[in-house]
Amino acid sequence: MFAGTIGDPAGVGPLVWAKAARGRLPADVVLLGDRRALERWLPEPLPDWNPDRRRRLSLVDEPGFAGPKRPVPGRPDATHAPAVLKSLRRAGAMALAGQVDGVVTGPVAKDVLATHEPGFRGQTELLGQQARVEAPVMAMLSPRLRLVLATGHLPLAAVPKALTQARLEQVLRVSCHDLRCLLDLPKLRLRVCGLNPHAGENGLLGDEEIKVIKPVIARLRRARLPVDGPLPADTAFLPQNLGPADCVVAMYHDQALPVIKREDFAGAVNVTLGLPFIRASVGHGTAFAKARAGDADHAPLLAALTLAARMSRNLQSR
Amino acid sequence: MFAGTIGDPAGVGPLVWAKAARGRLPADVVLLGDRRALERWLPEPLPDWNPDRRRRLSLVDEPGFAGPKRPVPGRPDATHAPAVLKSLRRAGAMALAGQVDGVVTGPVAKDVLATHEPGFRGQTELLGQQARVEAPVMAMLSPRLRLVLATGHLPLAAVPKALTQARLEQVLRVSCHDLRCLLDLPKLRLRVCGLNPHAGENGLLGDEEIKVIKPVIARLRRARLPVDGPLPADTAFLPQNLGPADCVVAMYHDQALPVIKREDFAGAVNVTLGLPFIRASVGHGTAFAKARAGDADHAPLLAALTLAARMSRNLQSR
Repeated sequence: MFAGTIGDPAGVGPLVWAKAARGRLPADVVLLGDRRALERWLPEPLPDWNPDRRRRLSLVDEPGFAGPKRPVPGRPDATHAPAVLKSLRRAGAMALAGQVDGVVTGPVAKDVLATHEPGFRGQTELLGQQARVEAPVMAMLSPRLRLVLATGHLPLAAVPKALTQARLEQVLRVSCHDLRCLLDLPKLRLRVCGLNPHAGENGLLGDEEIKVIKPVIARLRRARLPVDGPLPADTAFLPQNLGPADCVVAMYHDQALPVIKREDFAGAVNVTLGLPFIRASVGHGTAFAKARAGDADHAPLLAALTLAARMSRNLQSR
Repeated sequence: MFAGTIGDPAGVGPLVWAKAARGRLPADVVLLGDRRALERWLPEPLPDWNPDRRRRLSLVDEPGFAGPKRPVPGRPDATHAPAVLKSLRRAGAMALAGQVDGVVTGPVAKDVLATHEPGFRGQTELLGQQARVEAPVMAMLSPRLRLVLATGHLPLAAVPKALTQARLEQVLRVSCHDLRCLLDLPKLRLRVCGLNPHAGENGLLGDEEIKVIKPVIARLRRARLPVDGPLPADTAFLPQNLGPADCVVAMYHDQALPVIKREDFAGAVNVTLGLPFIRASVGHGTAFAKARAGDADHAPLLAALTLAARMSRNLQSR
């Protein structure tokens, strides 16, 4: 069973959960969040969660999971922020307590949450702090492409400094371990991109490949980790360059996410590696305009739930 | 007619020109470069160029177009650099003199050329200097996706500073003008990405969108240029977000090239905008390993020639 969050109650999160609830869910879910945000999209209310009774989908709407105002689809509101953060933290706590196998999160608006909690960088980072994991790793997985980000939600100008040898080594170690376990990929290979265009062209276009990336790769290869690179990012994603068990390691957000989202927006699932529980999330954002129009595709949510269930089975079969 | 360059004589350039020469070329070409690099791949020598006699493909191998050593496929050699640069400059000179409609270039190795000419950044930049164009603009065009880069071949850490209002405005103006003319796209729209992930999320993940990109877009919209944004790069390339006359403007190299190359490596043509002549290039690099193996696909070269010919027809029909 998974703890689900609706994300921003004014975004498409409640709508896609409601649409998914009308069909066959690929896993049991206890949803945490504002009942009012869901009811608008559902013919009848969700049953309250009862730990003693198995249900495909049930709801926990505790005090604090709902803000002072009724959410209006498509209208972000900073007064929702404490409720969104509280239900996310509760989901993390349930996973840490072993009440659920993991967490499946809906989309939030970082800027809305940051108004309430300055320094908020993302759900990945928050769950990492909660689990006392220094470097949670963001992965994006679709049926045709796997990728991992060496740095997270940062201004582009902050990326080169954030990419230290220690960070990169941690990301590669965590990725090797978790992807092998969670995806049952004993022949996994990590294909590491350079930071600079053309992987720096031997130092001509930047030296982070020489000073940071190559030493880490050499160290890990000596430790028999299946790590290659650094590779020019513009050809690292070519289908002919990727084997069936390969994962591309991009150095930063926009080096990789445009690729997977253009190819398979509905099938790309955001997975956090390095946590002591499974965490999957829809790959899309709050899409307030779609929430306002009442029209959003729930295929990404189903993809996230399906993958979460598969990862859970892989873990249990070890 | 176009002036063609073979690029690095030890790369796949000579091989793909030779393979193209055996079939039907989509445009007349006078090739500039080391005859020895081509002969290895051709059953009979190419005829020498004669300006008075029209031929589909002919060759100019002047003193200086060949280095002191016979090129060995797959073995880059710094002694070839002066010859590569000389034939590239001759191609640019022929275009500036109106002897040809434009230039179609083979792939070079930046680090090899930089050994001879410190500061060499790329063929795009060199042709720009030769034509006294301060800001030549790199575009990559495939049948399904058009994109333009606001900055060129730079270390990632240098990108934020290079993205000034002046540079971005120039890139957008040049792109509007040239793409409309060259591609016959009267309904062109430029869809401008942010520099930071999620286009900065209202300043939370960087402020270049607020300080640089938005003011330029606002100014150009007042001047009735068809410019939108800034848009999050991870969704800017989504097919459902792009109209038939849209072009994505990425802020830097690896924000965009991985997307188009994964989708259509053979069909992606590198086009330089802002020059007083047409310039197209294969989208791939020297691929020394493929040159060594004697096996490379010439479809990208045919795509570049076909597009160059189409752009030339569009210009002439105006």
